Amino acid sequence: MNTNATSGQKAPTQKIDPAAFAQQVRNKMDRKTKPPGSLGRLEQLAIRLAEIQQDLNPKLARKRICVYAGSHGVTAEGVSAYPTVVTSQMVFNFISGGAAINVLTRHAGIEVHVIDAGVDAVWPDDLLKEPRFYNRKVRAGTRNFLQEPAMTRQECEAALEVGREQVRLAVADGIQIIGIGEMGIGNTSAASALIVALLNFTAEEAVGRGTGVNDEALVNKVRVISEAVRKHGERAGKPRGEYWLRCVGGYEIAAMTGTILEAASQRLPVVIDGFISTAAAAVAFEMQPEAREVCFFSHRSDEQAHGKTLAALAAEPLFDLGMRLGEGTGAALAMPVLEASAKILCEMATFDSAGISEA
Amino acid sequence: MNTNATSGQKAPTQKIDPAAFAQQVRNKMDRKTKPPGSLGRLEQLAIRLAEIQQDLNPKLARKRICVYAGSHGVTAEGVSAYPTVVTSQMVFNFISGGAAINVLTRHAGIEVHVIDAGVDAVWPDDLLKEPRFYNRKVRAGTRNFLQEPAMTRQECEAALEVGREQVRLAVADGIQIIGIGEMGIGNTSAASALIVALLNFTAEEAVGRGTGVNDEALVNKVRVISEAVRKHGERAGKPRGEYWLRCVGGYEIAAMTGTILEAASQRLPVVIDGFISTAAAAVAFEMQPEAREVCFFSHRSDEQAHGKTLAALAAEPLFDLGMRLGEGTGAALAMPVLEASAKILCEMATFDSAGISEA
Repeated sequence: MNTNATSGQKAPTQKIDPAAFAQQVRNKMDRKTKPPGSLGRLEQLAIRLAEIQQDLNPKLARKRICVYAGSHGVTAEGVSAYPTVVTSQMVFNFISGGAAINVLTRHAGIEVHVIDAGVDAVWPDDLLKEPRFYNRKVRAGTRNFLQEPAMTRQECEAALEVGREQVRLAVADGIQIIGIGEMGIGNTSAASALIVALLNFTAEEAVGRGTGVNDEALVNKVRVISEAVRKHGERAGKPRGEYWLRCVGGYEIAAMTGTILEAASQRLPVVIDGFISTAAAAVAFEMQPEAREVCFFSHRSDEQAHGKTLAALAAEPLFDLGMRLGEGTGAALAMPVLEASAKILCEMATFDSAGISEA
Repeated sequence: MNTNATSGQKAPTQKIDPAAFAQQVRNKMDRKTKPPGSLGRLEQLAIRLAEIQQDLNPKLARKRICVYAGSHGVTAEGVSAYPTVVTSQMVFNFISGGAAINVLTRHAGIEVHVIDAGVDAVWPDDLLKEPRFYNRKVRAGTRNFLQEPAMTRQECEAALEVGREQVRLAVADGIQIIGIGEMGIGNTSAASALIVALLNFTAEEAVGRGTGVNDEALVNKVRVISEAVRKHGERAGKPRGEYWLRCVGGYEIAAMTGTILEAASQRLPVVIDGFISTAAAAVAFEMQPEAREVCFFSHRSDEQAHGKTLAALAAEPLFDLGMRLGEGTGAALAMPVLEASAKILCEMATFDSAGISEA
């Protein structure tokens, strides 16, 4: 069955009837030594993975998370609890292995790529030589989207391409599942603005505390998002996804959108992390609704708008552990669960092979 | 700090003030490079693990799940969708590595012990020679608890001891966290009867479909549980936990209760699986309320009474994936998350060490 043992992504050359294949996968799952359906979502995940990989034995041994970083002009409006320099400081932390995402990916055997999609920093040569670091800076941070569009059309295209490139690299390297994460002080503001514009939330519904702003700053953040979406909405261009991404998005958000879009066309499963990457998914689904087929939502973040955003996208996350750090930390916890589900389909005995009586 | 690097369980010889130590652990967590609290429950789990192990660097590298099996006399009442012989057939499946618990534990680097606490089967020599198999049969299945107490006082004591022994073995082997799981056709009936008796649920509230009984069999199952609890309640002995465990429990359930009780006295973290092991925990907490301090509830099972039981015990599970297989499968998914949380405390950089600006 597996015509793609090496890459795990390329469609096999012979034509597979999707409905017939889906039935084959379900039949295989139902012969396993357990009451039918008793592994719940693990069974559904395994079946989806098999369908995406078009393989009755889906494989997720090779896993990678891409952490995209970008700086945000809108931080000039006082929307974050942390100074903007933290974005570049955290890039060093990702490379030196001390961040939460490093701990969680080492634990789970997941590779990490760190991609500068638009950080306001000049990198030392040491960092530029790091094999896991991708210097793909589109610009040294977005413009302040309360005043003007965050990026130009060309910059937005370039940022989408930064994310697409990572999928091509992943497929070439034999990666079987990719996760997305981000770092960008100010990016909950960009994500909130995107979901106000694309999912019709009010600013109050869409704005949360991010890294932890106080009550006063929260009121200001709501005002900034509300005002920005009103302004850019006056001459809303089409297509909507691209328009809003460029007006109120971020370079790291656009890169994540690019990753999702390219993963969909390459049939590579993508694990979405928290609020920011879900906003990137909302943009991707606006641009190409079928992209949702390769997406797995890892967790419901503690950022207050995330649950609503997931619901609006009809996305059911795997767990809710009250996390709100980003970086891909939720994706890192979800990937081993996804791999476990795939192994259920690959490795479990059947009633026949184990000689077990049936109901 | 770590005076127990090898076993990870024994209390250090010097006296540690619990409140002062708890503060030390929280301080350590709050210096990590993330907004305070932004890893949500991972932070709380890590702190609990540190407190249980009395170690600022909690370690869960060595993990084991004990799968206890037992047969149930109450199956004579037609309470299960599967024939009772499946219990012994599944023991072979556990040993040959084809069951769901084998797949999930191999995936996560967890050892498995399979313990016959009271299976109605005569084992072949081959099985008895398996190093991972423990032949600790108290009796070839419980008595039908609708007619008489499921076990005698002596049998119940012996089954508790079967579970205690596994903790002593684990500690001697340097295991740092233990999980419990079970196999026993008919044991959702025993678990339901226990929670009716101990947590004051009605039989309707406490009874679910188990491996998958139909509507008619469900009505019968409710009747059996209701009637059995009424009968044994007429001369309810004390202590309550032991009384009900012996009247309506099972050998594998009593063994799990024993594991929890012994783990509490050895300060070994225990991961609870689904509905049956939660019923065993309810008995353990009735017998010794402090036992809850070492317990981690892995998941909310799809068995309809499990959510209520967890709520009644004020236990918050890590996830809800609609699973209802037992065997320790939920515990196997939870253990890597617990280990990840411990590594956050051990491995993450601090604001100072990474040179990151603060809020």
